[in-house]
Amino acid sequence: MRSALALAALELFAEQGFEATTVDQIADAAGVGRRTFFRYFRSKEDVVFPGHDERLAEVVERLAGADPAADPLLVLGSTAEVVLEMYLAEPEVSLKRFELTREVPALRDKEIASIDRYQRVFARYLRQRFAGEPGGDLRAAVAAAAVVAAHNHVLRQWLKSGGALDAKRSLREAVEHVADALADRRSAVERNGEGENVVVGVVRTTAPTGVVLKQLEDALRELR
Amino acid sequence: MRSALALAALELFAEQGFEATTVDQIADAAGVGRRTFFRYFRSKEDVVFPGHDERLAEVVERLAGADPAADPLLVLGSTAEVVLEMYLAEPEVSLKRFELTREVPALRDKEIASIDRYQRVFARYLRQRFAGEPGGDLRAAVAAAAVVAAHNHVLRQWLKSGGALDAKRSLREAVEHVADALADRRSAVERNGEGENVVVGVVRTTAPTGVVLKQLEDALRELR
Repeated sequence: MRSALALAALELFAEQGFEATTVDQIADAAGVGRRTFFRYFRSKEDVVFPGHDERLAEVVERLAGADPAADPLLVLGSTAEVVLEMYLAEPEVSLKRFELTREVPALRDKEIASIDRYQRVFARYLRQRFAGEPGGDLRAAVAAAAVVAAHNHVLRQWLKSGGALDAKRSLREAVEHVADALADRRSAVERNGEGENVVVGVVRTTAPTGVVLKQLEDALRELR
Repeated sequence: MRSALALAALELFAEQGFEATTVDQIADAAGVGRRTFFRYFRSKEDVVFPGHDERLAEVVERLAGADPAADPLLVLGSTAEVVLEMYLAEPEVSLKRFELTREVPALRDKEIASIDRYQRVFARYLRQRFAGEPGGDLRAAVAAAAVVAAHNHVLRQWLKSGGALDAKRSLREAVEHVADALADRRSAVERNGEGENVVVGVVRTTAPTGVVLKQLEDALRELR
């Protein structure tokens, strides 16, 4: 019923505009009464972005309970998956909403504001995780924005694919890229270094150590 | 006059609320007529976020004319400085606006929407610069979000400092951090590599190559 009401509403919004559509018309189109509508949604706007409040609360709770030893960016990644699942669960509604938010600036602005709420929750979590580190607040703000951007990018790709893309897998890969890029790249070597200012990159490779070292040596000489 | 009107408006919004304040009251408080108000602003909302349209157009133009050989993230950084300058030019108005947007959710949402417009313009620029690269669109979305987050972080720090922080310098440093982190970290060695999956990190150091290699070797063995 919830889904049927949402679809009916989104079709009416697309046909005759958001402002011009009344709750009565939406209920009529779904073959129910006004009362039934209000059992599922608080308002017309709530139909366009249903569940965000609940999902945000879930996100806050997940982050509060996250393993403090886990990579903070990967924690955000799996939390972003929870948000993504909300869209994936109702592909038809998500696709209609996507069309609608592209056409109605007011709805677009509302969607952006709701995304920003997730981003602020993510940033707050990272600020706590990075507390006491130099530049920790900046890193938190940047990394939260990066994870949200990765989520939105994947969501958009999924919507553009008409729901065909493996969105959860794409999100995981995207967040891994982000986490790799934004990882604290100082290795144990540098942190224990004796004044030699050496910054060691994260090296992911299947090549033997000897080959890696030879290539690193070449690269270093090339850089100097 | 523009500044005086803006300040009068922001004071009234703070005192009696945004919705309850009329254009006539704002004009009265600034000692001018309604007509003068509309010579400077299109609407009440335009007072809260003045100049954004013009500044966005300027940003689009700067990016279109940017040196195609320049580091794309540093191009965004210097462009973000243009946006930052808009706030720095009128510290008193910016500070009042900051208080107001924290208190009035509708205004906050409007500000977020206007920031998102910059972010989309930034992302579009990076998509062009990264066109044809694998994962280029994702990198563009993430990097644009990261630069905007750095800008917003610095702006917030500046506002919290009551305008005392050297914001332009902080922004440059923040964007350099972001650009470093998100740089295409594949070295010439990897790109020319013969199937050996070697990813070489950017190494910034004053240490002699021999020392670096020894430490890299240790680090590699430690990672395996």
